[in-house]
Amino acid sequence: MGQQADNLVSPQVQADRHVTFRIRAPKASEVTLTGDWMPQREVQKLSKDENGVWSVTVGPLAAGTAIYSFTVDGVAMADLVNPKMKLRARGSASLVNVPGDGTELWAARDVPHGNVELNWIPSKALNGETREVRVYTPPSYDKDAAKTYPILYLFHGSNDTAAGWTDVGHAHYILDNLIAQSKAVPMIVVMPFGHAVPFGGPQQNNTKVFEQYLLEDVLPVIEKQYRVTPGRENRAIAGLSMGGGQAVQIGLSHLNLFSALGVFSGAVPGDFSTRFKSLLEDPAGTNAKLKLIWIGCGKQDSLFSRSQQMADTLEAHKINHVFAPSEGLHNYANWRLYLCEMVPLLFRDGK
Amino acid sequence: MGQQADNLVSPQVQADRHVTFRIRAPKASEVTLTGDWMPQREVQKLSKDENGVWSVTVGPLAAGTAIYSFTVDGVAMADLVNPKMKLRARGSASLVNVPGDGTELWAARDVPHGNVELNWIPSKALNGETREVRVYTPPSYDKDAAKTYPILYLFHGSNDTAAGWTDVGHAHYILDNLIAQSKAVPMIVVMPFGHAVPFGGPQQNNTKVFEQYLLEDVLPVIEKQYRVTPGRENRAIAGLSMGGGQAVQIGLSHLNLFSALGVFSGAVPGDFSTRFKSLLEDPAGTNAKLKLIWIGCGKQDSLFSRSQQMADTLEAHKINHVFAPSEGLHNYANWRLYLCEMVPLLFRDGK
Repeated sequence: MGQQADNLVSPQVQADRHVTFRIRAPKASEVTLTGDWMPQREVQKLSKDENGVWSVTVGPLAAGTAIYSFTVDGVAMADLVNPKMKLRARGSASLVNVPGDGTELWAARDVPHGNVELNWIPSKALNGETREVRVYTPPSYDKDAAKTYPILYLFHGSNDTAAGWTDVGHAHYILDNLIAQSKAVPMIVVMPFGHAVPFGGPQQNNTKVFEQYLLEDVLPVIEKQYRVTPGRENRAIAGLSMGGGQAVQIGLSHLNLFSALGVFSGAVPGDFSTRFKSLLEDPAGTNAKLKLIWIGCGKQDSLFSRSQQMADTLEAHKINHVFAPSEGLHNYANWRLYLCEMVPLLFRDGK
Repeated sequence: MGQQADNLVSPQVQADRHVTFRIRAPKASEVTLTGDWMPQREVQKLSKDENGVWSVTVGPLAAGTAIYSFTVDGVAMADLVNPKMKLRARGSASLVNVPGDGTELWAARDVPHGNVELNWIPSKALNGETREVRVYTPPSYDKDAAKTYPILYLFHGSNDTAAGWTDVGHAHYILDNLIAQSKAVPMIVVMPFGHAVPFGGPQQNNTKVFEQYLLEDVLPVIEKQYRVTPGRENRAIAGLSMGGGQAVQIGLSHLNLFSALGVFSGAVPGDFSTRFKSLLEDPAGTNAKLKLIWIGCGKQDSLFSRSQQMADTLEAHKINHVFAPSEGLHNYANWRLYLCEMVPLLFRDGK
């Protein structure tokens, strides 16, 4: 059922990092490819051979895991023969791994691996829905039943799922590698599903319902079940795109809970400067509470101005922060790098 | 990218368990639906409205999680707006949850939940590939760091993935519920990816390479990392379809390792009676070693004769076994039930 039993290979990654994408669609009249390495709305046309197989070769692509999909006569779809999927709230796509030289922090390297647990938590905020949360525990977690760990809440973007930060972001490998190099403190990372309101419908209340879900359902259950070091100084919150906006809103509204904030290509609220007026007007108090505000965004990202404005506002009010503009687009290639940069700065002065 | 930003809803599950499936494909000339509740090769035709949306309503479906896909002008694809996917080695499909009355053993109920861990194990048998293994630990696992548990190795079928037994089979909920009702011994369940040889190419050696991967890479790493009660009497092996064949082959070839075998709609080797001649001809010895052989299959399943033959052969040789033919097809609706029936019989006389 639904199976393509032929030998069609897609994607095919060559040693020089060129990649050939193929789809069998004999009756189609137009097939295009979109990839997260391309600027928005750009597409590549595929051409058809005598067997009804459409193909295109692109590259060289950057080493890493990239997202792509086909559009066949106007219908966007994943690669039909590739098992590696980028799950989405709507319109799941495919993943292609382009190997690097093996030294990348996001690669599966020969170091002790932590685990990612799929934790199913029934939620009161979501009318009893039992929903998956992904939880990374560091390699040492099972070794010493008395040891506790600081905790990072890490959010995905719009139309992503709880699987995004591991399947595409390789957050688990990044943590493994940084911990192995003693560049990061061993920590727990919690990756919930950020669409509290069904994606596709009105989204106005999503952050509000998500906040309730996070603080009333996820946080108490996780911090009871795992060995989490107590106290706000051991709790960080971060996210990408929509999740960056959620991290800003929830984090800065609950400095009693969080002491560090990461915003990756964030959908920072447009009214940031008025919404957080009281924090901005008390730099001494805010700086004492927030050990880290880390903001990263690609200069070619359509959300770049939001990060720039947030950084400018913080600067104007003498709120300590790190602003790390980079090259590049709105994609996991950047978000992996931002995680690599931010994580070493977390929980450094402990207790 | 790849996102359908409109408000199309699919699947739409009604209270009477009728389900409407929809896909937007304005330029298509024929769209059909296949579902794992239908006999093989049967399809339902969809009809198109003035907006280019194709739809069909079917049902009532049985309560449970079913698999379906669309075929648009000959191209089989998942539902484009449904985030719940049945991942496959090739040709991923979609999932629809049809709620029951909440008392089903495979449902998420208000009982203590175990965890499913995504464990990435580098494999020597697979040329260094780091591959996901899913590991269920029971609810009590983190409570007592001295307690050890018996272990079940549980395999999926052809063109499935390591996610199948949880995403579709709900093995974690089944274990949670059986343990909560004291109907099953708390146990660890290991769910590896069964395509050792890439699916789509020649499959002759798959079981052989998978056996090496399982016994040399997965088993030693898992049993070192988790608190597993030592000894063959605390180790069971089971699988569905192709995985049933793997369980038969690997289990019966390694009675030094395994003491219980489950075969669900299994691709039992055609030469079963000659391949395992020495076991069959020593019923006293074999019965002393094998505490359980559990065989289930749907009578409408095209593989039914394989299970029947295996059961007949065991019967003829006076090898103890349970044969539980059921109604139904080659699908997870049956495999969930079989797991519910087999798991309570495992590890009953402990030590």
